[in-house]
Amino acid sequence: MAGYGWISFTTDYGTFDGFVAACHGSIARIAPDVRVIDVTHHVPPADVTRGAAVLAQTAPHLPASVHLAVVDPGVGTARRGVVLSTPHGLLTGPDNGLLIWAAEALGGISAAYELSNKDWTLGDVSRTFHGRDVFAPAAARLAAGADPAGAGPALDPASLVRLPDPVTSIGDGWIEAEVLTVDRFGNVQLAADGTMLTGLGPNLVVNGTVRARRGGTFADVNAGELLVYTDSADRVAIAVNNGRAVVVLSVVPGDVVRIAERR
Amino acid sequence: MAGYGWISFTTDYGTFDGFVAACHGSIARIAPDVRVIDVTHHVPPADVTRGAAVLAQTAPHLPASVHLAVVDPGVGTARRGVVLSTPHGLLTGPDNGLLIWAAEALGGISAAYELSNKDWTLGDVSRTFHGRDVFAPAAARLAAGADPAGAGPALDPASLVRLPDPVTSIGDGWIEAEVLTVDRFGNVQLAADGTMLTGLGPNLVVNGTVRARRGGTFADVNAGELLVYTDSADRVAIAVNNGRAVVVLSVVPGDVVRIAERR
Amino acid sequence: MAGYGWISFTTDYGTFDGFVAACHGSIARIAPDVRVIDVTHHVPPADVTRGAAVLAQTAPHLPASVHLAVVDPGVGTARRGVVLSTPHGLLTGPDNGLLIWAAEALGGISAAYELSNKDWTLGDVSRTFHGRDVFAPAAARLAAGADPAGAGPALDPASLVRLPDPVTSIGDGWIEAEVLTVDRFGNVQLAADGTMLTGLGPNLVVNGTVRARRGGTFADVNAGELLVYTDSADRVAIAVNNGRAVVVLSVVPGDVVRIAERR
Repeated sequence: MAGYGWISFTTDYGTFDGFVAACHGSIARIAPDVRVIDVTHHVPPADVTRGAAVLAQTAPHLPASVHLAVVDPGVGTARRGVVLSTPHGLLTGPDNGLLIWAAEALGGISAAYELSNKDWTLGDVSRTFHGRDVFAPAAARLAAGADPAGAGPALDPASLVRLPDPVTSIGDGWIEAEVLTVDRFGNVQLAADGTMLTGLGPNLVVNGTVRARRGGTFADVNAGELLVYTDSADRVAIAVNNGRAVVVLSVVPGDVVRIAERR
Repeated sequence: MAGYGWISFTTDYGTFDGFVAACHGSIARIAPDVRVIDVTHHVPPADVTRGAAVLAQTAPHLPASVHLAVVDPGVGTARRGVVLSTPHGLLTGPDNGLLIWAAEALGGISAAYELSNKDWTLGDVSRTFHGRDVFAPAAARLAAGADPAGAGPALDPASLVRLPDPVTSIGDGWIEAEVLTVDRFGNVQLAADGTMLTGLGPNLVVNGTVRARRGGTFADVNAGELLVYTDSADRVAIAVNNGRAVVVLSVVPGDVVRIAERR
Repeated sequence: MAGYGWISFTTDYGTFDGFVAACHGSIARIAPDVRVIDVTHHVPPADVTRGAAVLAQTAPHLPASVHLAVVDPGVGTARRGVVLSTPHGLLTGPDNGLLIWAAEALGGISAAYELSNKDWTLGDVSRTFHGRDVFAPAAARLAAGADPAGAGPALDPASLVRLPDPVTSIGDGWIEAEVLTVDRFGNVQLAADGTMLTGLGPNLVVNGTVRARRGGTFADVNAGELLVYTDSADRVAIAVNNGRAVVVLSVVPGDVVRIAERR
């Protein structure tokens, strides 16, 4: 197998401890020529949804890769580890929904395998750090060209754990959608696809009270005003020019936001 | 063209989202052999001055590089993107002053180009994420050996947007200078060049009230005492041995600090 | 000499300034083919013990490396820089105890050298940034194959500065040990070796009042309950399933924790 030159790496490990580095070490020991792109290690602890969203929005912009992701509150339990094949790369991590959205963004799951081959681990496998001992070694072997089918038995993709679909709905002059993420700049990204904005006019109201305008970039509204736009991940998002929409709207991921035409 | 083996990368993107990784992806897809040194991604959002200062103080210590920097509150507006040539490397980013101090630290601007060549972008160019779609791809092409003149029309360097020069002044037994940066350790760096300390004696007072001593390193004063010294970027700086000068002085970047001989 | 393909890098520099990047630059200028694994740069400022613990727990999981570590409150004073040889890699940094635990984890110190060779530095050596000017250049030269003996005079390993040994003690049905680290997830790691748990039964009490259970992984106790386990660094640790043990126990590194059988 040709393998992959790159591994992407997403976790909730933070960068205050040596956890991320230990995983880099596992990769380097098995596949020293492979290079790692760290997606983020600041997923909030155990926030599988946030990890899934960030990975799904980033993976399509990376070179063909093995995507290693570990947000794994069930580490050490019977939860499975998995390897997923897609037309544009492989993914490995826990079977808790973390990988699915990214797999779909990479063209969909063409095959799935349980990660259970004991020959693929590295060192004595701890009960609490499968990133280092199980998943990073698997990613390294896959990047080095191992056949994904060597990870373990084939799985029915329908048996994979999935996150609930975020709420989105659309009506005459309005849309409603769950907040998917809030970014560094306070921009509020909704689960709604950007095409859901098509039917809306330029003058909007968010959550019944806050005026907003449709536009393409931050400076399309005055400083302090709300902008509704399609963001760089093709999602409906809300920003404040020179400000933080998350503060103005006072929302958190999972909240449902309503955007309606102003009458 | 021979190109560059390295890209340095400075942003205000933070590391909680996948923005930095998406840019690494753009680079890897175009110039997979180039390696990236992340300068910092924790420039405070939209703080162009801070970004300019960090890049200018770091770039001279890096190998010959293409310096990619994106602190870009004007993304998606008519603000230009630019490529700057210097004797010791190239720079690319928005035309908002972010790159100028680094260009000067690398020997001065020998040529400037507008970054407008549509063939240099990657994917559909979003209105809000030019780091991924425009600037990182440009940096990758330059590192891979593209002629900077291919970026777009030549610009008169005098037409580039510049940040205001920080305030510095010197008199008989005193200096005054703007706070340029405060670092992780609470050390307060002034815009004044280290040579401005030459005329001052060993016993000093800062802002009229706080006693300080001239020295070369932190332990030249007792624990808790203020040190005035030339820092590793050849700037006048103020530290507290075993403490945080920024707390003692209660200053922020942009404030003017006066250091005078004690009489 | 064959050298090393990898440098690991541990500091208290943070990632808000350009300090880490400047050190990467020093390495890249001297040994461009060497690759760097960042262990962490978020050691609390001047916290040598924390730096030593993180490095010691991470280094054994990395490929054979030169381990560069700089937590250096004594920078610019007479404190020595050192190079340590072990059976599984080299280490360089200040002689303040930072490197010793990692050296022991790598098989013990087989030779020690003072880092004093002026030909190994890079640029004018600042009084306050030896990471960039002294230690990173030394790590790069060592990785590129320089003989460690070229760093400077051989030292008696017994002359190296050492951190105090953390408190641990064991009795009939109890152990006591200092908190060594608290990780991103709030798990409390003790200085006690995992084998010290052998004599304890399944039902425990921590610090005389908080009930806990022995187990192997987080889900071995109910959500909100305390788990006492051997962590991935083979240390006794205390976790809360779905919670933060550090909050429940209200401890900080250096505190002594008592774990006893419940009667």
